[in-house]
Amino acid sequence: MNSRENRPVSVSYAQTTHVVLPNDTNTLGNLFGGRLLQWLDISCAISAHRHCKRVVVTVAVNHVGFDKPIKLGDFVTIKSHVSRAFGSSMEVWSDVSVEDQVTGELIKCNSAIYTFVAVDHAGRPVNVPEAEPTNEEERKRYEGALRRRQLRLILSGKMKPEEATELKALFE
Amino acid sequence: MNSRENRPVSVSYAQTTHVVLPNDTNTLGNLFGGRLLQWLDISCAISAHRHCKRVVVTVAVNHVGFDKPIKLGDFVTIKSHVSRAFGSSMEVWSDVSVEDQVTGELIKCNSAIYTFVAVDHAGRPVNVPEAEPTNEEERKRYEGALRRRQLRLILSGKMKPEEATELKALFE
Amino acid sequence: MNSRENRPVSVSYAQTTHVVLPNDTNTLGNLFGGRLLQWLDISCAISAHRHCKRVVVTVAVNHVGFDKPIKLGDFVTIKSHVSRAFGSSMEVWSDVSVEDQVTGELIKCNSAIYTFVAVDHAGRPVNVPEAEPTNEEERKRYEGALRRRQLRLILSGKMKPEEATELKALFE
Amino acid sequence: MNSRENRPVSVSYAQTTHVVLPNDTNTLGNLFGGRLLQWLDISCAISAHRHCKRVVVTVAVNHVGFDKPIKLGDFVTIKSHVSRAFGSSMEVWSDVSVEDQVTGELIKCNSAIYTFVAVDHAGRPVNVPEAEPTNEEERKRYEGALRRRQLRLILSGKMKPEEATELKALFE
Amino acid sequence: MNSRENRPVSVSYAQTTHVVLPNDTNTLGNLFGGRLLQWLDISCAISAHRHCKRVVVTVAVNHVGFDKPIKLGDFVTIKSHVSRAFGSSMEVWSDVSVEDQVTGELIKCNSAIYTFVAVDHAGRPVNVPEAEPTNEEERKRYEGALRRRQLRLILSGKMKPEEATELKALFE
Amino acid sequence: MNSRENRPVSVSYAQTTHVVLPNDTNTLGNLFGGRLLQWLDISCAISAHRHCKRVVVTVAVNHVGFDKPIKLGDFVTIKSHVSRAFGSSMEVWSDVSVEDQVTGELIKCNSAIYTFVAVDHAGRPVNVPEAEPTNEEERKRYEGALRRRQLRLILSGKMKPEEATELKALFE
Repeated sequence: MNSRENRPVSVSYAQTTHVVLPNDTNTLGNLFGGRLLQWLDISCAISAHRHCKRVVVTVAVNHVGFDKPIKLGDFVTIKSHVSRAFGSSMEVWSDVSVEDQVTGELIKCNSAIYTFVAVDHAGRPVNVPEAEPTNEEERKRYEGALRRRQLRLILSGKMKPEEATELKALFE
Repeated sequence: MNSRENRPVSVSYAQTTHVVLPNDTNTLGNLFGGRLLQWLDISCAISAHRHCKRVVVTVAVNHVGFDKPIKLGDFVTIKSHVSRAFGSSMEVWSDVSVEDQVTGELIKCNSAIYTFVAVDHAGRPVNVPEAEPTNEEERKRYEGALRRRQLRLILSGKMKPEEATELKALFE
Repeated sequence: MNSRENRPVSVSYAQTTHVVLPNDTNTLGNLFGGRLLQWLDISCAISAHRHCKRVVVTVAVNHVGFDKPIKLGDFVTIKSHVSRAFGSSMEVWSDVSVEDQVTGELIKCNSAIYTFVAVDHAGRPVNVPEAEPTNEEERKRYEGALRRRQLRLILSGKMKPEEATELKALFE
Repeated sequence: MNSRENRPVSVSYAQTTHVVLPNDTNTLGNLFGGRLLQWLDISCAISAHRHCKRVVVTVAVNHVGFDKPIKLGDFVTIKSHVSRAFGSSMEVWSDVSVEDQVTGELIKCNSAIYTFVAVDHAGRPVNVPEAEPTNEEERKRYEGALRRRQLRLILSGKMKPEEATELKALFE
Repeated sequence: MNSRENRPVSVSYAQTTHVVLPNDTNTLGNLFGGRLLQWLDISCAISAHRHCKRVVVTVAVNHVGFDKPIKLGDFVTIKSHVSRAFGSSMEVWSDVSVEDQVTGELIKCNSAIYTFVAVDHAGRPVNVPEAEPTNEEERKRYEGALRRRQLRLILSGKMKPEEATELKALFE
Repeated sequence: MNSRENRPVSVSYAQTTHVVLPNDTNTLGNLFGGRLLQWLDISCAISAHRHCKRVVVTVAVNHVGFDKPIKLGDFVTIKSHVSRAFGSSMEVWSDVSVEDQVTGELIKCNSAIYTFVAVDHAGRPVNVPEAEPTNEEERKRYEGALRRRQLRLILSGKMKPEEATELKALFE
């Protein structure tokens, strides 16, 4: 595989199903937030690696929403994919679903966005291929990635608001 | 304590020090991202509880940056506090430092922002007191909290960009 | 879904990917056998549940082969499915693969066979639907399941060797 | 100790008692199957090592039966021993008991059979001494080990059914 | 069993063998002190329970010595027994050994002394039978237990030094 | 920092807050003794390191009292400090408190005393600076440390009772 070539988003698909055991619960008997964050981190790391075939390290958690509680005994499915690459960094999305235990239907609970960077053996960043969206939802996330990136750069003081043209457009 | 009264941010201070053991490392021998997220979740939950004296649940991780790798054997200190309350929800900041093992100096590594909600015994949201900043940094975070909140509401489709007056001001 | 109806094997497909962290290794730096057994148990339980939509409990591990060592940092993918149902019990297969970290190819490492039983709220066994194989490999496993079942019943003294007609046929 | 000499089975005896804590339970409040498999793996590895004084690796779980549920708070005692050696491989049995908390009596719950191989520093198999049974039960397991081995070789396609003379005898 | 009757110390014998896995080590690659303390707590609790057949709770760790480091891969055997009972409380000793991996010999590493109390369903202390030593070492520990108890009561301010007659005798 | 200079006790202050999760409880739903011992070991190790800026290893647990049960959901705060140094060894105290979840008040539960030794890269003991108490409670613990040390040396047979002049004074 030529490391310069663009790669379809589907190359980075990762999927994992967990059962919520007593060991994973908080004092209300629901899935403990910290445990879900750990599961998400691993799932996103697998997607980032599948996209670039490099050692990858987490550089940021950009957003995780816990929209409804996940209960003891639930089956939790996490599906991840790289949504866009920027030089050596990759934005990765995870969608979290719980399974209806009678119908088997997957009920979407929340989403998460992480950023990973690819590194070489000395830990220096290395460029990764572009990620190419191939369906509607991937394209939407691909496009939003640029605005989210500008936002992060502004919030961390690495970009001036007036340079964030895509983001500014939101407010016009 | 009257639950309607404002409370100084310092009521919610929480502090924890961890040692990075082999059990906490990734395949590079550094602190595994998922483990730090778990530690942060607990520290922020303690701050949120100390502010409102209620059961609290994580509703979002808004940002966590992993600016430099934390190594096996490092002492990691996490300091958290509530930065601002909005009805039943609280924005909580955590600052992560690693200790220089010769001088003992705390070297700041990164920050994290989580959102918690206070709930009653039936799991319904209950209002919490205001958080009052009492120094410069707390005030800065208190003010930024409103912009971050508008941004989250926009990104999740619950607010229109033109209504986010504080955030818009950033781009003018 | 009518609980008496046969169900295609594909209803029970379950898939999970793990990263081997230091916490999962033995003193040789390879994936610790006991940890893989734990992962397999969860994956098979998900398949058994998806087939019958009931609470399921492990009643036997019938075979797990560890054909080659799995190393620290490897991505381990476990795919499970119900191969055949007998009254209240289900034979479940898991196939374990490791991912080539350059090509992304899944390299098969070993297989496992577990038996689960569906129970009601009082813990009593309840009958489950038949599992219908729909491709060549599923059919092969479906057929072998009867011989393996006879063998287990003989080894545990619950069947006489002369009654195990399918198994006897192997030696004629 | 001369590594060529036969060794009595008793050299390999290993015994461990665990308490079932909340961390070890499934969603029914019983001991989670995957946890027992982990405990069995360690106990069998100790027996295999005691027999041959070499690094040993799990190559197969041949059978584990979960005949009755083990509950939160139970004391679980696992006793293991090598039942027979074949070249570099060893069949290891574990017997699992739960303690009656009033009389202190050990109540047998189930048995497990694992196979280990002894390896040198480069991971190559090395021959181990013979295991010599010295009582009735050890002798019964020693004799059964040959039939179980033939069965495994047949199921994995490494032996033809007609060559498995001991096993064939079962069906005649 | 009549709960008033004396019981020989041997009724409370408990034995467990652990393998030191990477998950159990500190940053020097040795067994992490906190993990050994956890293993000791469980082993002593089993002994205390076997003596009195009651729910038991840890009330004190009286002494644990870590005389030499225990290394990754070592086999650690813990043997515990009740040394003496006082009303509702029991002094429990654990001896920790590491196995020479060539000769199989158990090499004593250190000892630990814990105190447990038996409680009823409401958590109130209940009296336990006397423990009767039946060999030289058990007798020595039985006799020392009274001095150690006086010492604890003095250190916690519950006894005046001049009342501790057995302990005073040490200094005369 | 000159390693020969005395250091105030406050240099070694360490503080950590934990939440008791289901994973940390025993079969009564209270904090499991072994888990608290693990938390104490880490907290004391941090204090010992902060005092001497060296690698430190646990050499003894001298006393831990569990005066009242700590419950699921409690916030447990551990505060540690070095109370006195003797050559290469340090006595370290930890105070354990639980937080009243309505008033936020810290309610003292129990104390623990551990001994650590500072080692160089070859694992040989190295001398550490003196610890200087600067308030009443630190002074009291500093003075008691000598009596406790004499006691330990007597109990382990390394000192004769008649040489323990500070300790003898207790009984006169």
